Amino acid sequence: MLYDLEKRGSHPIYEYLYHCIKNDILTGKIEPGEKLPSKREFAKSHGISVITVENAYAQLVTEGYIFAKEKRGYFAGDIGGKYIQGKKKRIPVAEKKRKKWLVDFKSNHILYDSFPFSTWSKVMRQTLLDQENSFLESPESQGVAPLRQYISMHLEKYRGLSIDPNNIIVGAGTEYLYGLIVQILGHSSMIAVEDPGHKKIGKVYESNGIRCIRIPVDRNGLKVEALKGSNASAVHLSPSHHFPTGCVVPVARRHMLIQWARDNDSYIIEDDYDSEFRFSGKPIPTLASIDEERVIYMNTFSKTLAPSIRIAYMILPEKLMKVFREKFDFYSSTVTGFEQYTLANFIRLGYYERHINRMRNYYREYRNHILTAIKESPIFDKVTIEEENAGLHFILKINRDIDDEQYVEKLKNNNINISTVAEYCYNDNENFKHQFIINYSAVQEEDLKKALEIMNRALED
Amino acid sequence: MLYDLEKRGSHPIYEYLYHCIKNDILTGKIEPGEKLPSKREFAKSHGISVITVENAYAQLVTEGYIFAKEKRGYFAGDIGGKYIQGKKKRIPVAEKKRKKWLVDFKSNHILYDSFPFSTWSKVMRQTLLDQENSFLESPESQGVAPLRQYISMHLEKYRGLSIDPNNIIVGAGTEYLYGLIVQILGHSSMIAVEDPGHKKIGKVYESNGIRCIRIPVDRNGLKVEALKGSNASAVHLSPSHHFPTGCVVPVARRHMLIQWARDNDSYIIEDDYDSEFRFSGKPIPTLASIDEERVIYMNTFSKTLAPSIRIAYMILPEKLMKVFREKFDFYSSTVTGFEQYTLANFIRLGYYERHINRMRNYYREYRNHILTAIKESPIFDKVTIEEENAGLHFILKINRDIDDEQYVEKLKNNNINISTVAEYCYNDNENFKHQFIINYSAVQEEDLKKALEIMNRALED
Repeated sequence: MLYDLEKRGSHPIYEYLYHCIKNDILTGKIEPGEKLPSKREFAKSHGISVITVENAYAQLVTEGYIFAKEKRGYFAGDIGGKYIQGKKKRIPVAEKKRKKWLVDFKSNHILYDSFPFSTWSKVMRQTLLDQENSFLESPESQGVAPLRQYISMHLEKYRGLSIDPNNIIVGAGTEYLYGLIVQILGHSSMIAVEDPGHKKIGKVYESNGIRCIRIPVDRNGLKVEALKGSNASAVHLSPSHHFPTGCVVPVARRHMLIQWARDNDSYIIEDDYDSEFRFSGKPIPTLASIDEERVIYMNTFSKTLAPSIRIAYMILPEKLMKVFREKFDFYSSTVTGFEQYTLANFIRLGYYERHINRMRNYYREYRNHILTAIKESPIFDKVTIEEENAGLHFILKINRDIDDEQYVEKLKNNNINISTVAEYCYNDNENFKHQFIINYSAVQEEDLKKALEIMNRALED
Repeated sequence: MLYDLEKRGSHPIYEYLYHCIKNDILTGKIEPGEKLPSKREFAKSHGISVITVENAYAQLVTEGYIFAKEKRGYFAGDIGGKYIQGKKKRIPVAEKKRKKWLVDFKSNHILYDSFPFSTWSKVMRQTLLDQENSFLESPESQGVAPLRQYISMHLEKYRGLSIDPNNIIVGAGTEYLYGLIVQILGHSSMIAVEDPGHKKIGKVYESNGIRCIRIPVDRNGLKVEALKGSNASAVHLSPSHHFPTGCVVPVARRHMLIQWARDNDSYIIEDDYDSEFRFSGKPIPTLASIDEERVIYMNTFSKTLAPSIRIAYMILPEKLMKVFREKFDFYSSTVTGFEQYTLANFIRLGYYERHINRMRNYYREYRNHILTAIKESPIFDKVTIEEENAGLHFILKINRDIDDEQYVEKLKNNNINISTVAEYCYNDNENFKHQFIINYSAVQEEDLKKALEIMNRALED
């Protein structure tokens, strides 16, 4: 056993020897049970120190390649055959290229100056100074207390909700919280979702191993009649602003929903995802304010602050909160403590309120520009706009008997990206024909004018 | 219908009127179908402008309390009964008080000066300037490309792993990733976990709706014989440093594990949670480096950076990555984009490497102090230390036939918090009697000396 130390390159000798011996054992050159030279012999034959050999042997012992017998020396272990895997080449990762559209009505990106960079940065710095523990301690399972406290104060002021902060659970996005709801309700439960609606919601529930049923939506939201007799453990909906139709569930149907939940010992998952962006009048009161024992209220900061921010929360009825405390608060929080404290401070100092007000005004005005551009376009007399005064999208209904899919395809070929409401339908539904979704937050006014011309021409062909 | 405008307090008139009418409809004072005064009449009788009434009526229409009939005016809707819920008092949330122990051997908190505050803060500021898009765009489902790229370079350098960054999935903590594994393997799968081991791991898998079996661990790690015929779809283990025993799985058994996975079309979930903290020699090579097609490698930044940081990652074999791409990349990333870019820059600039090296040296030295304190204490001749040169804990074995539970209770009464290895056993196991776990990262040396005296005295009684 003599290894050429010249070949070790920049590696330390002990590491080089460790690799050589390991390799000889893996390839069978040194056989199981074979005695190795004593440390002294080995050192002498290679002209190195005993300590160096000792380090190499120690590593091989730790990993199980060799073993020591007292007073007899070191022996090669039986590793059970030859195993060598060739090194693969690493493939460099390419950042996903996004197609550059003239106008992308599917995008919900936000514009650069809509995120309050300097304020956020200031609050981060202050949090780093004031709340050093935000980095050192594992945050509580349900989220740090100050964040829950300020969320509850915000909800009291803006949603008229009187919430016990102890019933708030903070998590890394609403999708994560949907998964937690499945665990709390149990894997044998079934959840009803809206049709049409965000298909992702049903997909998340189903990916978590439970059944979903789709309940049709009419102009007043989810049809409660269809819910009856469904055996659903919960129904997931957005009563203040349905996606994609934009409708608001009127108070009578809200009471029917609550009554259904009471009668069936079921729950309503109230997804209040963009209630902050209602452009006239007051925000619509929540279902949770009618009966907090039957409603799981849920909201996110991704819509109001920035899409990249992964902080959402839900409010559990006391009965479900009890289940969480008994069975699931062993979970670690999914949001970095520092981020939670930063957001808590951002709300506490009034910046969140100011930001939402600024964004609401900004979007109201921006939306009016977009709507004016449509009204001034030749396409206007062929369409109806259903806008409902809320949120970052509205519906453009085309009053011609076109083939919707062909129309979408034609626009795509002209660099315009757009969705139909039908794409969000699980079951075919005639009521949603010729309806197109306009997400306007990432649309530039000038581009829009060109796009409207193309869209009008595509109707003429 | 005449409302006393004096009573409106600081509320705008339209909001006050909206509340009054809404309340009258909810309490039945205004009956379903009842005609409301015209906007003009109402304005005149209250001495206010028509616009104000219009605003109040508009909000009531949106929420479904009243409806308009063309040319006939406004009517109260049928809300289906009376529903009023009293406001509950908000209970202020108390930050959870942690018991103050003399010494807490269960805690894995880290000490203040171990987190690189100023460097992290510098990198955050730079990220905010250079990567403004990190806030504006939703991060890719599997994590942003630069972070995956730098993780793969780090693994190449420190773990000898040649990884395609496209197979890395970043998530909000390992527990979240366990849940994702369940979805990828399917809810009918079964996962084997170590006994003894972190009980939380089995709990997470079971909470996600699948079955777990416990496989006994001996001095060389998980017994592969017990795994055979188990029908497990995957086995979850920490081969480089088992918790709590500290053992390292030797190479022969590693090959047996890989062979088992190959023979049964199963997977090994390699939880490499604290491999960075091996205090002598090199880090133990990973199972993933033997066969990347059979191993899901997993690690977290919570252990190396700070417990509050919720960023972990896993590397999927190509076959499972395909399942993820086909079925689960609709999920939003669970880690805020800005945090991902900050960490990517922190690794890129060499700070992560420097930090780990600093911490490894720090813990090595700190551990030696702790071990010396034990050696100098009168308890030393009654115990054996099984330390294995790695990680932030070691095992103290007491060579007396004590009742372990009573001993723990006695220590608790003396303000010392400590766990037994037996607490981490699912099935009773005689082999782990009288073994206690010493997490030393949060222990102060001075307090330790006092604690050792108490622990020694408690053995004498």
